[in-house]
Amino acid sequence: MKRIAVLTSGGDAPGMNAAVRAVVRTAAGYGQEVVGVRRGFQGLHQGDMRLLGARDVANTIQRGGTILLTARSHTWRSPEGRAQGAAFLREWGVDGLVVIGGDGSFHGAHYLYQEHGINVIGVPGTIDNDLYGTDHTIGYFTAVETALDAVDKLRDTAASHERIFVVEVMGRHAGHIALDVAVAGGAEEVFLPEEEKHVSSVVEIVQQSVSKGKASSIIIVAEGYPGGALGVAAAIEEGTGFDTRVSILGHIQRGGTPVSSDRILASRLGEAAVHGLIEGRTDVMAGRMNGEIVFTPLSETWEKRKDLNRDLYRCAKNLSV
Amino acid sequence: MKRIAVLTSGGDAPGMNAAVRAVVRTAAGYGQEVVGVRRGFQGLHQGDMRLLGARDVANTIQRGGTILLTARSHTWRSPEGRAQGAAFLREWGVDGLVVIGGDGSFHGAHYLYQEHGINVIGVPGTIDNDLYGTDHTIGYFTAVETALDAVDKLRDTAASHERIFVVEVMGRHAGHIALDVAVAGGAEEVFLPEEEKHVSSVVEIVQQSVSKGKASSIIIVAEGYPGGALGVAAAIEEGTGFDTRVSILGHIQRGGTPVSSDRILASRLGEAAVHGLIEGRTDVMAGRMNGEIVFTPLSETWEKRKDLNRDLYRCAKNLSV
Amino acid sequence: MKRIAVLTSGGDAPGMNAAVRAVVRTAAGYGQEVVGVRRGFQGLHQGDMRLLGARDVANTIQRGGTILLTARSHTWRSPEGRAQGAAFLREWGVDGLVVIGGDGSFHGAHYLYQEHGINVIGVPGTIDNDLYGTDHTIGYFTAVETALDAVDKLRDTAASHERIFVVEVMGRHAGHIALDVAVAGGAEEVFLPEEEKHVSSVVEIVQQSVSKGKASSIIIVAEGYPGGALGVAAAIEEGTGFDTRVSILGHIQRGGTPVSSDRILASRLGEAAVHGLIEGRTDVMAGRMNGEIVFTPLSETWEKRKDLNRDLYRCAKNLSV
Amino acid sequence: MKRIAVLTSGGDAPGMNAAVRAVVRTAAGYGQEVVGVRRGFQGLHQGDMRLLGARDVANTIQRGGTILLTARSHTWRSPEGRAQGAAFLREWGVDGLVVIGGDGSFHGAHYLYQEHGINVIGVPGTIDNDLYGTDHTIGYFTAVETALDAVDKLRDTAASHERIFVVEVMGRHAGHIALDVAVAGGAEEVFLPEEEKHVSSVVEIVQQSVSKGKASSIIIVAEGYPGGALGVAAAIEEGTGFDTRVSILGHIQRGGTPVSSDRILASRLGEAAVHGLIEGRTDVMAGRMNGEIVFTPLSETWEKRKDLNRDLYRCAKNLSV
Repeated sequence: MKRIAVLTSGGDAPGMNAAVRAVVRTAAGYGQEVVGVRRGFQGLHQGDMRLLGARDVANTIQRGGTILLTARSHTWRSPEGRAQGAAFLREWGVDGLVVIGGDGSFHGAHYLYQEHGINVIGVPGTIDNDLYGTDHTIGYFTAVETALDAVDKLRDTAASHERIFVVEVMGRHAGHIALDVAVAGGAEEVFLPEEEKHVSSVVEIVQQSVSKGKASSIIIVAEGYPGGALGVAAAIEEGTGFDTRVSILGHIQRGGTPVSSDRILASRLGEAAVHGLIEGRTDVMAGRMNGEIVFTPLSETWEKRKDLNRDLYRCAKNLSV
Repeated sequence: MKRIAVLTSGGDAPGMNAAVRAVVRTAAGYGQEVVGVRRGFQGLHQGDMRLLGARDVANTIQRGGTILLTARSHTWRSPEGRAQGAAFLREWGVDGLVVIGGDGSFHGAHYLYQEHGINVIGVPGTIDNDLYGTDHTIGYFTAVETALDAVDKLRDTAASHERIFVVEVMGRHAGHIALDVAVAGGAEEVFLPEEEKHVSSVVEIVQQSVSKGKASSIIIVAEGYPGGALGVAAAIEEGTGFDTRVSILGHIQRGGTPVSSDRILASRLGEAAVHGLIEGRTDVMAGRMNGEIVFTPLSETWEKRKDLNRDLYRCAKNLSV
Repeated sequence: MKRIAVLTSGGDAPGMNAAVRAVVRTAAGYGQEVVGVRRGFQGLHQGDMRLLGARDVANTIQRGGTILLTARSHTWRSPEGRAQGAAFLREWGVDGLVVIGGDGSFHGAHYLYQEHGINVIGVPGTIDNDLYGTDHTIGYFTAVETALDAVDKLRDTAASHERIFVVEVMGRHAGHIALDVAVAGGAEEVFLPEEEKHVSSVVEIVQQSVSKGKASSIIIVAEGYPGGALGVAAAIEEGTGFDTRVSILGHIQRGGTPVSSDRILASRLGEAAVHGLIEGRTDVMAGRMNGEIVFTPLSETWEKRKDLNRDLYRCAKNLSV
Repeated sequence: MKRIAVLTSGGDAPGMNAAVRAVVRTAAGYGQEVVGVRRGFQGLHQGDMRLLGARDVANTIQRGGTILLTARSHTWRSPEGRAQGAAFLREWGVDGLVVIGGDGSFHGAHYLYQEHGINVIGVPGTIDNDLYGTDHTIGYFTAVETALDAVDKLRDTAASHERIFVVEVMGRHAGHIALDVAVAGGAEEVFLPEEEKHVSSVVEIVQQSVSKGKASSIIIVAEGYPGGALGVAAAIEEGTGFDTRVSILGHIQRGGTPVSSDRILASRLGEAAVHGLIEGRTDVMAGRMNGEIVFTPLSETWEKRKDLNRDLYRCAKNLSV
């Protein structure tokens, strides 16, 4: 192996820079050069790349976003686009590519390997934590912390006004963020995409809560729950007549200085991805499960279902009494 | 003077507890007892009050929200409601009331003095900074910091995706928060309620920005600007075709641990309010202008217009080149 | 089982309140009353206890420190002191005690069971993460985050002045905090109590770093490394002549709002401790390993050695190239 | 005027980058080029400079430290060193220099004007707030916030253990940081370099505090108070026998993302410095007093004494009852 390329793709996630740094420095330790591709697959299609040395990633471990930039690429969906990208990689003498991103990005990587034989390794970089094959994804811990910080702030107002707040957190298909935030934020209830719980159940919960003497409540709703926070709030107001406030946290959950857990996970997985390429692995994702590095076929990362933590779900319910 | 009462009213603001603490402890220093009224004028109407000693406010200076609770009172709008409140104050032997809140709360205090001769002093507690007679209001500094922190996070994503973000901050009638956040956040443009600038101007600004080589932009919109952030974003998308993201920060701007400037301001003004009552002042607000404590008739605080900082507005424009 | 008692003991750790809350609310779910003991074993010896209901722990999950107070008790070291504590527990009708603390506190709990047959379950609450039987201890994640935030700040100055900073973090006997902070903080080198590395090795590391073109460096030292940060800094100055600054972070690492991971861990373990008591377990600690709740005999928690994460140690070295 | 140079010098302070950005962009608005000098006067002496355009300072407003680097220069103390620096400025066609730093840096600027007729304007960039001619210096607000955040954390431990904490904050010659932190942190007492208060007075204060029922206390000591925090703690232990903990916050107070107030002040003063040069001012500092931009002769900034806020000092005492 002579050269390794690295790109970040899809939605940005805190810790992506720590992963890029780990790829560059691990490769440097093996005497390998690293080619940084800008703007994800779109940049790869356009040949927008440059060499990255160990000093080029200095002072980046603490930065949010991605210094390589990212994009959602349309051209990559066509076989011609991918052929063009593969040609650029060969031109630069690259024989292994690390793709940091989510399941869309892993599809792109998978095709590149299938169609052009480029060795690819995925590194899970997405705040949603919705990939099979790793306990956590890079960016997830920071997103939870940002959402929790917002909930703590809203709690001040909820408690002072004795009001109900319905807070919508990110998670289009997965309730991981919502569940963690609910437990850590001491929420009354949580609505997840994975649950079939009907929104009307919130009425009884709120009424019980009031009858127990609770003057204020926080209710967490994952973005992907049908109707979202607005739907839940409407159900409460209609069913109980209580004054309710909605807060949709939105994009702030993507940014910010990564917390330690994301930087450490990114460092471990960036390192593992290079090791994997050197060992001849391809078409797999480097993940961490129960503290150990594991490699999972890319296709399994999106085909297999990562379950919610049921114990935590039960815990959330039990502690909101 | 035998007893002083204190209440917080209207929207909660970070630093209200520091102001309550200052009232209680300054009064204690004069050997006076303090009666804490819960839930603002609603609680006053209902006689929901209790004695507060110096130890009761220990460990509260750093807390967001208000330990006295707050509410928006409907009953207070009727003369009967106010008569009832005045009767409770007399019953408790209170001959001076400190009202911590915004202009709605100051109206309530003003009527109490006018109709029942209760001595009242207002302390400006609102994140909006829209009261005449004080350079800043308690809670304003923290709200700016919270909004700025969100903008810093959004900037990570904006820069990584080379996108335009339109961020809506609080300020229904005043652009103070928006202006400070725009300067401190390095925003491209800011839309304020006080400005007659047409939303279409944003198209030219964005196009100039792109022609200067800027790949991403942050645009700040005050809640009270006609159309809000959604209107500005729609204008950009229609006029330029660029992909735009909207973030409405909302209620998180009200909560959180108060920053040092809010705690210091609250300490000074809570102290000044007690001094004012002891000196026989009434129907005035204690404020701080150019570092000095000043008392302004309550009616002037809402009748006179507090101007935007024009130098800062010009500065925002000049530095976004 | 009729009543459960709970206390916090030893050094305070962020998340202790979340654990107390989980104990109280889980017990409430089983219809059990909870007795809160103040000031740890000292308060138990003095019978300083009161009933805690579900509402008494409202709004505490986000608070640092411990609402039950804590202390290091001398009287507990005598058999008479423990007999007195056991008598108070019986008097209150308590037949199970949850002790939240570190190894010193677990010794106290162990004796109480051995000598008086009181059922005890330990919950690991200490920032040091030095207990066998759990992957992490409550407070550890927050301490790492606080130390990392400090390192990020120091990095600004280190980079601006092109200086070497030697930063001492907590960990008298264990290097867990130091290692996590080193990886996440992008440190040049880390000195741990568990390593026999001689301080003189730092000279070569600094010289290599300079020869690679690094203008500034962060070096992390655990409190328990012989000589501490001052010793390492002296070795650098003597061996290289470079200007060096020392920062000893100290007690700030114990306080602050707990991060999400500590609140979640505390919620799980507080719940598990009550389940354990109800199932008849005693003289064990509730821990979490690989995501699962496990119970470990109290004596093993301090007798068995929890190893450093060797993979992480290697990673720290590899990524500082 | 054709070209303006800018440098940062002395200890780094949060907001220096915002000031550099404001200088560069204000100059760009006037069609002027800006030359950035690296490493302060040391770099000036060595001719280490390069052109800075408006895009070069993009995305820097939120960064701590200084992108221009800083240093304490020995060579600048010699007339030859300054002559060399002046020659480089002429060579680059610079006819005005903005110096961002503290009083040491302003001395350097003053000599450059006196000896070589180079127009110089100072911008106050130092966390100490010890310059006459401006209400606040750039970096001061962030340093106070960082110290206050640490005090909040220590308060958790102090309250949980019912202990006395003595906290030392920066301020070798001035007590501004200490005083603000004392008021905002709800401290029991504060020891300042400007006060002649004897350390033994702390004994009585602590005893009174205990007799009032306070179980824990925070005492703030400015670095420049004789004996520092260690001296105060020793006096407490000797005089009262109470267990005391010391925390010396140190260098973390210099770094970190600047808070909004520092970014806004830096933006205003960087802009004002360029305006000043264009208007023909020299040998002065741009400051902000009572919200207005004012220019003060450089020599006055260090010769005249900036007083402590006596009202705030009294407030600190009154509210610690």
